[in-house]
Amino acid sequence: MSILNKISKPADLRDLTAVELEVLAGELRERIISVSAANGGHLAPNLGTVELTVAMLRCFDLPEERIIWDVGHQSYSYKLLTGRAEKFEKLRQFNGCCGFPVRNENAYECYGAGHAGVAIPAALGMCAAQTPDDRCKVIAVVGDGAIASGVALEGLNQVRTYGRNLVIILNDNKMAISTNVGALSKVLNRMMTSYRYRWIKNCTKTLIKLLPKSQSIINFIKNLEDAAKHLLLPSEPFESLGIRYLGPINGHNIHDMERAFRTAKADSRPVIIHIITQKGKGYAPAEANPERFHGVSAFDPADGSPKQKSEPGFSAAFGKAACKLAEKNTGLSAVVAAMTGGVGLNEFAKKYPERFYDAGMAESHAVSFSSGLAAAGKPVICAIYATFIQRSLDNIFHDVCLMDLPVTFVLDRAGLVEDGPTHHGIYDLGFLLGMKNLTIMQPACEEEVGFMLEYAVNSNAPAVIRYPRGSSGAGCRNDIPLIKPIEKPACSVWRNGSDLAIHAVGAEAVRALEIADLLQEEYHLSVKVVNVRFLKPFAGDILLEDLQNMPVFTLEDHTIATGFGAIAARTALKLTTPYILQSFGIDNNQDAAFGSVNELRKSLNLDSKYIAGAIFKHIQTNRIGFLTHLNSKTKI
Amino acid sequence: MSILNKISKPADLRDLTAVELEVLAGELRERIISVSAANGGHLAPNLGTVELTVAMLRCFDLPEERIIWDVGHQSYSYKLLTGRAEKFEKLRQFNGCCGFPVRNENAYECYGAGHAGVAIPAALGMCAAQTPDDRCKVIAVVGDGAIASGVALEGLNQVRTYGRNLVIILNDNKMAISTNVGALSKVLNRMMTSYRYRWIKNCTKTLIKLLPKSQSIINFIKNLEDAAKHLLLPSEPFESLGIRYLGPINGHNIHDMERAFRTAKADSRPVIIHIITQKGKGYAPAEANPERFHGVSAFDPADGSPKQKSEPGFSAAFGKAACKLAEKNTGLSAVVAAMTGGVGLNEFAKKYPERFYDAGMAESHAVSFSSGLAAAGKPVICAIYATFIQRSLDNIFHDVCLMDLPVTFVLDRAGLVEDGPTHHGIYDLGFLLGMKNLTIMQPACEEEVGFMLEYAVNSNAPAVIRYPRGSSGAGCRNDIPLIKPIEKPACSVWRNGSDLAIHAVGAEAVRALEIADLLQEEYHLSVKVVNVRFLKPFAGDILLEDLQNMPVFTLEDHTIATGFGAIAARTALKLTTPYILQSFGIDNNQDAAFGSVNELRKSLNLDSKYIAGAIFKHIQTNRIGFLTHLNSKTKI
Repeated sequence: MSILNKISKPADLRDLTAVELEVLAGELRERIISVSAANGGHLAPNLGTVELTVAMLRCFDLPEERIIWDVGHQSYSYKLLTGRAEKFEKLRQFNGCCGFPVRNENAYECYGAGHAGVAIPAALGMCAAQTPDDRCKVIAVVGDGAIASGVALEGLNQVRTYGRNLVIILNDNKMAISTNVGALSKVLNRMMTSYRYRWIKNCTKTLIKLLPKSQSIINFIKNLEDAAKHLLLPSEPFESLGIRYLGPINGHNIHDMERAFRTAKADSRPVIIHIITQKGKGYAPAEANPERFHGVSAFDPADGSPKQKSEPGFSAAFGKAACKLAEKNTGLSAVVAAMTGGVGLNEFAKKYPERFYDAGMAESHAVSFSSGLAAAGKPVICAIYATFIQRSLDNIFHDVCLMDLPVTFVLDRAGLVEDGPTHHGIYDLGFLLGMKNLTIMQPACEEEVGFMLEYAVNSNAPAVIRYPRGSSGAGCRNDIPLIKPIEKPACSVWRNGSDLAIHAVGAEAVRALEIADLLQEEYHLSVKVVNVRFLKPFAGDILLEDLQNMPVFTLEDHTIATGFGAIAARTALKLTTPYILQSFGIDNNQDAAFGSVNELRKSLNLDSKYIAGAIFKHIQTNRIGFLTHLNSKTKI
Repeated sequence: MSILNKISKPADLRDLTAVELEVLAGELRERIISVSAANGGHLAPNLGTVELTVAMLRCFDLPEERIIWDVGHQSYSYKLLTGRAEKFEKLRQFNGCCGFPVRNENAYECYGAGHAGVAIPAALGMCAAQTPDDRCKVIAVVGDGAIASGVALEGLNQVRTYGRNLVIILNDNKMAISTNVGALSKVLNRMMTSYRYRWIKNCTKTLIKLLPKSQSIINFIKNLEDAAKHLLLPSEPFESLGIRYLGPINGHNIHDMERAFRTAKADSRPVIIHIITQKGKGYAPAEANPERFHGVSAFDPADGSPKQKSEPGFSAAFGKAACKLAEKNTGLSAVVAAMTGGVGLNEFAKKYPERFYDAGMAESHAVSFSSGLAAAGKPVICAIYATFIQRSLDNIFHDVCLMDLPVTFVLDRAGLVEDGPTHHGIYDLGFLLGMKNLTIMQPACEEEVGFMLEYAVNSNAPAVIRYPRGSSGAGCRNDIPLIKPIEKPACSVWRNGSDLAIHAVGAEAVRALEIADLLQEEYHLSVKVVNVRFLKPFAGDILLEDLQNMPVFTLEDHTIATGFGAIAARTALKLTTPYILQSFGIDNNQDAAFGSVNELRKSLNLDSKYIAGAIFKHIQTNRIGFLTHLNSKTKI
């Protein structure tokens, strides 16, 4: 029986020998690799935190002491060692094990975190809630990318006030998601690579070699090393904020980490422990290419090759279009927030390094920085995932829309995503639709991305283009009409029909064709399909016309109440004759879980088959005047 | 003729003597005091930046070199000295002079900033847009409160990458809006008050006294002082981020500041200049009570006493209710973001210091910190202005609503406010209405605040209570029905009527009574008035019933498209019979300017008289079936 199988709670780790711990680390890596290979997952970050997790669980007293993972995508070992090894097999599968911590999933999960940087403020809040004599530590495990995000920095600034029991474990893998940026990262790097640090390290090594191999002597030397580091290394930034700094420490050496954790436990001040880990550690393909293995789809564990070759999709179409525009428009810049590859701008970054800016995981800064570029006369494309743009809504309002500056926001990963509740891009429109001067578009297919980008940049004003992860599926159909350059805010009629109309936003228009096919096949209904394209300004003429002639159904990849559903309902108020209008999209009282997008759609009654049935039923139960002609030719 | 009257552009300042500059500073103060006394304004911060502005305008070459004020409420002297002295008389008046910088108002305004912390990112963007041989400086004037906000810290972290021409002027008045918090503030304070600093200062003073009074000797000694400060003071945090630190410098000594600015100009690295100013400087009442004089309504310049005694209003009702709840519920905490007095929690802070937390101008942290408290079992009231909550929407989503934690957000200053476009609280609902688990309420009058707060805290789940600045006006009416404790999400019928209904949100319900009176008097229409109270969950039964019986008009203090207008339109879709529904509120394509709220309403066609007329006209032109009975008894 493996050691891992014997661990059902953290206390089981306490009695393991050094050799057993090493075996356990190997078993954890094996399990993480095999499950991620089958289900996809955040492989590289989780291979980096194996020993860190073991060391933490041996030193801290859970669940009285609390651990917050920031971000949560490094907590696989933690899940495996705190009673969820069985569930872990269903990682990222619908009704299985979420890839992120979920509060109250069991006694060891005190906080859910999928967006970076919030662990320090949240842990401070937990510290503030303690009674004065409580000595339980609250541990925030923060990545080196996450710690440079605004909310983490705001939190750091308050540690000395409330953080008596706070332990920050800075998991520094020098990577964030792609490579790390900014001065703080350089400071951390300096700590690690400074001449003095190497000198101290070498002294310690030499001493340990020369002196007899006794644990107490080794401990004594290590203590000396700590003292020397404390005296000689640039531990400022943190010390000046009133936080004791310990490190840097090898994050793959359980023993060294445990010493630091025990030191932190004994201290009555806030402590930051700087741990150096390697992203992808122990799996050669991931060590060689940690960015590609940050978050992966299912792959062959033998060589890391993906099981399914992914279609080019929206991100690739955007990357190509951005490069093409930048060639013509030599002032055009691009700004990202740590997701260069994810948003499809690797090529742009390589081709136009002098016009490419990576703000790191600092979305507010990314937007205000874009605004500064634009205010100085340089149009900007600012590409951020839809879920993370939520961190810069105020900057979009205050720094871009109010001043009517030419920044085009490209929101990738809009709609439902596998990662689940923390990551769905289904809320952004609620705020954005209120913004003056802002144009909002959704391309129905990859080809439309380039035309929309061109339209947005040429408009010389604020714009948003949003689309889902992956591809539209338009490539599998032969009935998509010719996509043409965009001249003005107007929808595009993709298919004519006489019984009802579906007005769909973005890639949902491709699904609307599928639904229309089902309605035709099953119920002999002739369905009009409209690709809405513009949400703001919204050209409502075709919607109003259709509402007067047939029932209209809207379809979107966003919360209905704050998205296209609301726009359509408000537009319809212009009519004084009766009409039928129903919207399909996310209900703001539903749980949008994690799992494959198809499964999520099913669970939310948003799969094509369900929608086709619901549309038929709706028509059947709400026939009014102009619908009665349906009787003769359909099964109603 | 005064010196001020002779200054029409910055260059006019260049030839003034030291004595003339002193006179000018006095004239600027006089003007700022007299205009603020007449119109209200941000008095105390602007009295602090008189000399700073003069020194900057003498040293930097505007408009080629750019100044961004962060936040903008310290730029009155700047407006007065850059061609807007005449307009300044109409400070904060409709169609007059905005109290904040407005981009392109003239050649000297390159950026508008009313929310704190964005100047550093924006200035970095402007630096990045420069050609490599451009030596023009971009100057960000940042308050000591603003610099601790997340987006400013994110920007600081990137200065060394793009900030070659960046000059940060840290205007440190040790106050932010109330008192400053956090470790950074302590670091700054240490720089200023350290033993070494005082020792250097004293040495310099003594030397200057002892040696002959020659300017070159004084300059030599000052240079020595700089060198000594650089060697001996804790200039780390900034130096470790790759930013040259100069200071601290007396922000009321023009000569000393000019020396530092010239040093910064000559440097090809980013520089931060730490200026110490006194909030309220030169006006005794404001010096004595800088918080009260941060932003004031019209006052008597002789003694600073307010011209109109303000009614207690919503903030006071909230403060009282929060104290009362905290007495019963001993776990209840309160969190604010730098606006203790503004939100009405001075009393709470005094009474329950161990349960009161001021996060500073760090709204994201404030919300995630509240979440941490709540996750540890302590219910929280988190009070933030509606306009600033835009900075923490992601935290409300990710840290509170997703985990269903008991945090009650109290959004003061919702709706239109005098300060103008940057400060209107008219966008927040768009995002919030999409949040699962979140209850959203608006009290129609002060009495309702306490009942809603009680309901929210007792619900043990996320909630929002939003209301406007000042009072509801309910006190002036004698037809407000008895306000009772809230038992469930339901609206409250305030007046019955048979011709039409107005469903109004929050304090707009009081205005709805006024509109109903007008409609009765002018057009003999019997108007039903409904106080909506709950936006989420929205109890639509009475709305649906009314829609079937009469035309319904909605009234709100928010953008219609993303607020109650959208809720009402979506609710009405349930009906298959015809109805009339029209919404009044902010149009997301309109300009909501600055000025008194009454003038703003007029400019947006939202004053009671206009709305009454519009309702009558709408009914007249859209009569359908059930409306024809109106013919007999009204003027239609």
